[in-house]
Amino acid sequence: MRIDSPRDYVVENLKYALDPSSIAVVGASRCPNKVGYKVIDGLQKWGYKGTIYPVNPRAEKIAGLTAYPTVADIPGPVDLVFVALPAYLVKMVLEQCVAKQVKMVVIATSAFKEIGRADMQDALTQYCRDNKLPMVGPNLVGMGSPYLDFNCGFIPYLPVKGPVAMISQSGANLLAALGTSQMSHYGMSFFVGLGNKADVDFSEFILYAKDDPMSKCVATYIEGLDSPEAYVEACNETVPTKPVVAIKVGGSKIGVKAAFAHTASENEGTNDAFYDDIFERAGAIRATTWQQYLDISLALGLQPPLKNDNIVMITNGGGSGLLSCDHFERRGMPMRELKDISPMLAQRIRAYMPMFGSPLNPVDISGTASPKQYKGAITQAIRDPNVSCVYGSIAPTAVTDVEAVVDIYIDIYNEYRYLGKPLVMECQGGQECADAILKLRDAGIPAYATPEQAVDAIIALRQYAKIQERFAK
Amino acid sequence: MRIDSPRDYVVENLKYALDPSSIAVVGASRCPNKVGYKVIDGLQKWGYKGTIYPVNPRAEKIAGLTAYPTVADIPGPVDLVFVALPAYLVKMVLEQCVAKQVKMVVIATSAFKEIGRADMQDALTQYCRDNKLPMVGPNLVGMGSPYLDFNCGFIPYLPVKGPVAMISQSGANLLAALGTSQMSHYGMSFFVGLGNKADVDFSEFILYAKDDPMSKCVATYIEGLDSPEAYVEACNETVPTKPVVAIKVGGSKIGVKAAFAHTASENEGTNDAFYDDIFERAGAIRATTWQQYLDISLALGLQPPLKNDNIVMITNGGGSGLLSCDHFERRGMPMRELKDISPMLAQRIRAYMPMFGSPLNPVDISGTASPKQYKGAITQAIRDPNVSCVYGSIAPTAVTDVEAVVDIYIDIYNEYRYLGKPLVMECQGGQECADAILKLRDAGIPAYATPEQAVDAIIALRQYAKIQERFAK
Repeated sequence: MRIDSPRDYVVENLKYALDPSSIAVVGASRCPNKVGYKVIDGLQKWGYKGTIYPVNPRAEKIAGLTAYPTVADIPGPVDLVFVALPAYLVKMVLEQCVAKQVKMVVIATSAFKEIGRADMQDALTQYCRDNKLPMVGPNLVGMGSPYLDFNCGFIPYLPVKGPVAMISQSGANLLAALGTSQMSHYGMSFFVGLGNKADVDFSEFILYAKDDPMSKCVATYIEGLDSPEAYVEACNETVPTKPVVAIKVGGSKIGVKAAFAHTASENEGTNDAFYDDIFERAGAIRATTWQQYLDISLALGLQPPLKNDNIVMITNGGGSGLLSCDHFERRGMPMRELKDISPMLAQRIRAYMPMFGSPLNPVDISGTASPKQYKGAITQAIRDPNVSCVYGSIAPTAVTDVEAVVDIYIDIYNEYRYLGKPLVMECQGGQECADAILKLRDAGIPAYATPEQAVDAIIALRQYAKIQERFAK
Repeated sequence: MRIDSPRDYVVENLKYALDPSSIAVVGASRCPNKVGYKVIDGLQKWGYKGTIYPVNPRAEKIAGLTAYPTVADIPGPVDLVFVALPAYLVKMVLEQCVAKQVKMVVIATSAFKEIGRADMQDALTQYCRDNKLPMVGPNLVGMGSPYLDFNCGFIPYLPVKGPVAMISQSGANLLAALGTSQMSHYGMSFFVGLGNKADVDFSEFILYAKDDPMSKCVATYIEGLDSPEAYVEACNETVPTKPVVAIKVGGSKIGVKAAFAHTASENEGTNDAFYDDIFERAGAIRATTWQQYLDISLALGLQPPLKNDNIVMITNGGGSGLLSCDHFERRGMPMRELKDISPMLAQRIRAYMPMFGSPLNPVDISGTASPKQYKGAITQAIRDPNVSCVYGSIAPTAVTDVEAVVDIYIDIYNEYRYLGKPLVMECQGGQECADAILKLRDAGIPAYATPEQAVDAIIALRQYAKIQERFAK
């Protein structure tokens, strides 16, 4: 439901959603297949340190914990109430939460506005707002943080630790991102599913992320904004210090219906240009595809903004170089020739390649490049005061020592990090490249499996620098 | 060098490049780091069944095999000569090949036209053409086939068996594709690096693939075409029975120089529209990014063409459904509503989803979907005579049995394969999804890690159906 502006009391209380001292799970179940069981199981398994109160009028113990008939019966104070009960029982629980002075309530239950019960949902929202009880959901999957060992919802795993705060309307896509995080070392600071976002809005979680020390980039997956102006306001406050990434789905003609059926998102009368305008005013960087959403948010979370387009690409594979320069041009940011970036650099780099290498840009140090040649070429490039970004690429030829080259990149990154120049990598191929990508990401270097992904990441770093300039106070 | 038309004697002899009975490796080396060693090692290690003749005037044995001073000294007939010698020695070897009545020669050596030695390269080409000795290269990485246990070049591994014939100008990108093949079960029938393609041209390998029974789709990675009309002609002969995919790199302003430096490809005066026209006339399906190139060639190799746009998507994740319908619309092929595809299908599918599921298109059977519900919904869709393609999506919610759903898809695919309807899958998430993708691909179902990749694959299947109609005789 619409808000004019992010509300202070909500932002203030979000810490109880992501870092509560005590949680009541209403609808707690002894049956391992039920959501009401999985929530408690997830909290315990991932090491939640606070107190868990199962609430179930027909059980004495659940998962080894004392169960209480209602929220009112819980002896101590309760920060967060997680509700997994049928829709018609939710109002009753909210009344108990208000009486108990609960700080935050999360409604996982589906079957509200998304199936036509807008009145029922709006009544709950109004009740929560009248009583200043912030409500997340309904129709959501949960939230958590790897830094706090906190996994609250029906969520199979925590992500790896990292820079991205993931605020998602879609539960399934949030879960997909968590799975990708584990598998591809896409690091997150916290994550939350918003579902129908009947009360707590994107804007409020964005402002929470702004002040969260672990979050370096805010990624927002949007099916529909009820309160675009609040989103713009929250982004405007955030982007001077942290980038915001947005992906908007459900903009297609048939998607409008599907988005309503999924998270009750209203998109009638809006279109892509409408959201382009919102994200432009917000200073948010818009991703088109899911892959791009993940790729650019990781780069923005790990690397500094890119202050100009003096990018030098160093590769041992001419093909990945060509794919890259084509994609840079296609995206409207053509690469510059090496001699135009820095007149002497080509000669200095020449020393580190065979005769058939090419000191253009991309710098092709050839498929025979040794770790030593890589080291020389990268060092020359990153130290050159005219170069603002090094884009490294490793192609797995039969003579390439991928592991040694990765170690060289990591060493150089650590040595020259103080220069504030982004380093982005591409490593296209089989298992040794997949392993290289994980190792590079663990070292803080955004690395990707295709040239186009890396180029998209670099362009996002440039976009963010321009946004920072625009919003500088 | 330019040809007017694919040459019969070349196409006829290409079997000696990909399935030779005997190979001489000129420049064979005892040093394990040298290309001249790696070629022999690769042939032996991967199980080449023919005879290998190392050629080296200063060695008696190499890798356990008798070495010969020159090609002329080899006792038996030689189908293929692989040359890994410095550029200035290549002419001499070619003369010996002609004298020996060798069937095919492959020049791995670099440092020809790509570093300015066009005259030297052209002289070799003319010599080969005058003597009807087809030459592949120079400046290439090698070739091979997993069906023939044939790995000839400096190539760390063979791909997994499958439908795609990969014809690539870039060595490093070919190697990347081979690595991806191993890791992601992207199956190939054969592969070849063309390098500078001084003599043997794309068109000739395309015609070879046309008649190769293991090749179901021809994928061409192009840095520049010397003989566009020959390419068009070869494609026109091929596309009535097998799809051709093309990716063209080096079209950007800075890429023109880099493409010349890489594989001596001449792109001055050409641009993207120039190649759009060539591919349009050829009936080749153009990919924009490397990822798309791999994704669509796999789908085209595994699945039948898509005869109309009556595509039904079945998903347990509303988010992936939305990403998909947005991408379909963005690509100019919007999804149709279920009721417009088949009036009764929505009701029949309704039986297999909870109340908050959505029988629109995408059909959202919800995050709680059981394998049984999946089975019912997919079966209803694939059996409906109005449906021409099922697009399946699995989101890994906490209650999704990914493995069971994968098995159901494979069973249904095998049961209804005779209907000739494409089945394409998307499985977005962590390790269980990565495993699901491999299992689906092994069963012949193209499966992808993001919705947009799957949509691109489906669109390519539709494009191919239209191309087949156009070229039907």
